[in-house]
Amino acid sequence: MEVDPGRVLDLLARLHELTATEAGAQRVAWTPVWARAREWLRSELDALPVTASVDEAGNLWAALPGRSPRSVVVGSHLDSVPDGGWLDGCLGVLAGVEVLRAVAARSAPPALGVTLVDWADEEGARFGRSLFGSSAAAGLLELDSARGLVDRDGVALVDALAEYGVDLVRAGQAAARLRDVAAYVELHIEQGRVLEAAGLAVGVVDGAYGIERHRVNFEGRAAHAGSTPMALRRDALAAGARLALAARDSALARGGVATVGDLRVVPGIATAIPGEATLVLDQRHGDAAALAAMLADARGAAETIGSDEGVAVNWSAIQSVAPVAFDERLVQAAGECVRAVAGETMRVPSGALHDAVMVARAGVPAVMVFVQSLGGISHNRLEDSRPEHLELGVAAVDRLVRRLAAGSDPRS
Amino acid sequence: MEVDPGRVLDLLARLHELTATEAGAQRVAWTPVWARAREWLRSELDALPVTASVDEAGNLWAALPGRSPRSVVVGSHLDSVPDGGWLDGCLGVLAGVEVLRAVAARSAPPALGVTLVDWADEEGARFGRSLFGSSAAAGLLELDSARGLVDRDGVALVDALAEYGVDLVRAGQAAARLRDVAAYVELHIEQGRVLEAAGLAVGVVDGAYGIERHRVNFEGRAAHAGSTPMALRRDALAAGARLALAARDSALARGGVATVGDLRVVPGIATAIPGEATLVLDQRHGDAAALAAMLADARGAAETIGSDEGVAVNWSAIQSVAPVAFDERLVQAAGECVRAVAGETMRVPSGALHDAVMVARAGVPAVMVFVQSLGGISHNRLEDSRPEHLELGVAAVDRLVRRLAAGSDPRS
Repeated sequence: MEVDPGRVLDLLARLHELTATEAGAQRVAWTPVWARAREWLRSELDALPVTASVDEAGNLWAALPGRSPRSVVVGSHLDSVPDGGWLDGCLGVLAGVEVLRAVAARSAPPALGVTLVDWADEEGARFGRSLFGSSAAAGLLELDSARGLVDRDGVALVDALAEYGVDLVRAGQAAARLRDVAAYVELHIEQGRVLEAAGLAVGVVDGAYGIERHRVNFEGRAAHAGSTPMALRRDALAAGARLALAARDSALARGGVATVGDLRVVPGIATAIPGEATLVLDQRHGDAAALAAMLADARGAAETIGSDEGVAVNWSAIQSVAPVAFDERLVQAAGECVRAVAGETMRVPSGALHDAVMVARAGVPAVMVFVQSLGGISHNRLEDSRPEHLELGVAAVDRLVRRLAAGSDPRS
Repeated sequence: MEVDPGRVLDLLARLHELTATEAGAQRVAWTPVWARAREWLRSELDALPVTASVDEAGNLWAALPGRSPRSVVVGSHLDSVPDGGWLDGCLGVLAGVEVLRAVAARSAPPALGVTLVDWADEEGARFGRSLFGSSAAAGLLELDSARGLVDRDGVALVDALAEYGVDLVRAGQAAARLRDVAAYVELHIEQGRVLEAAGLAVGVVDGAYGIERHRVNFEGRAAHAGSTPMALRRDALAAGARLALAARDSALARGGVATVGDLRVVPGIATAIPGEATLVLDQRHGDAAALAAMLADARGAAETIGSDEGVAVNWSAIQSVAPVAFDERLVQAAGECVRAVAGETMRVPSGALHDAVMVARAGVPAVMVFVQSLGGISHNRLEDSRPEHLELGVAAVDRLVRRLAAGSDPRS
């Protein structure tokens, strides 16, 4: 029994219809729309001979048993950024549903079990910290920093989790779910332009950029916009603007990427020089030393700027992820499966953070397969991929999961 | 009967207690706290033989008749920015209350009437447009642009006004109040550091900076922060940051001031390059040609930045005020009165916008008296002045109003 990749396109369209507005996908984790997406997924799983359950970190698992207690896990995340696209995350989950359906339809159970996972809060859109569920399962969730997270309205992460039945203190117990996992496979859109530039439908991801994400607060002095001479200002927004541009220069010089995705000022009115500015700086690089140098560049620039502008600078770490190389045997196996269904392929690094990175850091062999993104657009309602490329991605992942579940345990 | 300037300090302290939080004054116009301040002011006026009324633009007037139908107006505004200081605006209103009390306590009515005014919404803190009430009275309120104003929560100015009994369409009828006004006198804190640097308690304001205030919107493309190479970005925040710094350079070069008091980004999350950034640019200069050059600098810079960054740039005018020179005879009379009570004084320009500028533009002779601000701090809870300086300012304004009400009509 083969997969029918066209069914995945149907599932994607139905999920989008159910949870998107005209502005795009709205499946922000720990919100009612996300919960509705989850409910719909569970109703789809009800038709399959799987055991579904939610772990202590809010991740949803659906297990189809094999002859061995070990299993191959396939999945991604249903949650999205606000005004997001129709593919980011849900492609991998719904491809997993179709892979499960195809496996279940075969006459004999596979050697290894096949399990679907929908990780909780990959995006971190509401609380600014990505990969909640997969970090917890990997034993890499930092409780102390998670406890301090609040959303824009001042709601604490710990309270939002409780609304969805998750106790932050117990979230780490989700690690038990990775104990008997032989391999983890994640299908995702590239969200970049490398495959498009190379004219390839599907790529194999051999590793992921490391990330340094920090909140930087500048504290100057609020004063009247009209009667405060330029020389006497301590303008927190000017300091923030300079850091955003300095971090960009450093990324360009060192071959990484740097983004200030948010910047807020207080009091935030036309007639007052901002006394406070807070931004989130996100820096990424595939090489650990270069990433450390980018962070050092930004810290040095902030120090100079603070001194120039007469503003105090406070850094607080949000997230730090080391660059990761995926399991070489799995990367090779994935390459063979992609070539079998899609012809030519290539290895690409992932600039975006993915749950597979956490799984790999937990010591489980992991690999990702990327589908070409049109224009590299993602985290945006214009995010899109060609249907035939999406179908090739689903077919490649099905082939890989089938091969792994047949007993080619990369750990053995 | 002389004024008792110490009573003004008591009134200021009582108002602050009634309407401030630990973060500072909260008398934002068209909000309940502002309405409470107004009620308290009316209860203070109840003790005086004055006729109090609110005009079509929401300005509060309290008239003490003279022998002529013409009058001298003294006043300022009770409204504040959020987290503001204890003196900005209310000093001039409460000094006016004390001047009225002293005039009323004299045995004979003055030649000219003396009228207190509390202008509505000087700060423009909620809707981003200053001088609502005095612009309306001066016949300078632009209805079309006022109709489009909304606050952060999307509430339209026109609806907020209606809650306080003001019909935007009829606001211009407030102009009738300025018809028989012989002179306008406003006491205010300097909100700058010129008097402090000169070691002077009180200064005479001979004119006010012109202002160009615009909302500038940059529209780039939201995209994933990790997988979008630097070269392929259309980062709206980077464009906004560059304009903020370019406008600052222009102000420094041309001897004016420029401020970006607010900057907002969409979607505003750590993992997305901002697709949209909107800032408010406020530029000021005492010379009309130099101000025009500053605006041209900023427009030119925005065009270059838009082209460099691949982002569209949209300007929308919020407010444009020409530089104003105050009535020379009134400025001289004010100087004599200040010298009589405080000794040495000097002329200073006003970098901040004040209701007196609108009154002057309506053709009414106007003048302002500034009290030294400690550290130049204003629009901030740390705003302060020395009590003895405040008392000298009150005494000087009382002397000037008394002299003008005695019949030295600067129009005659």
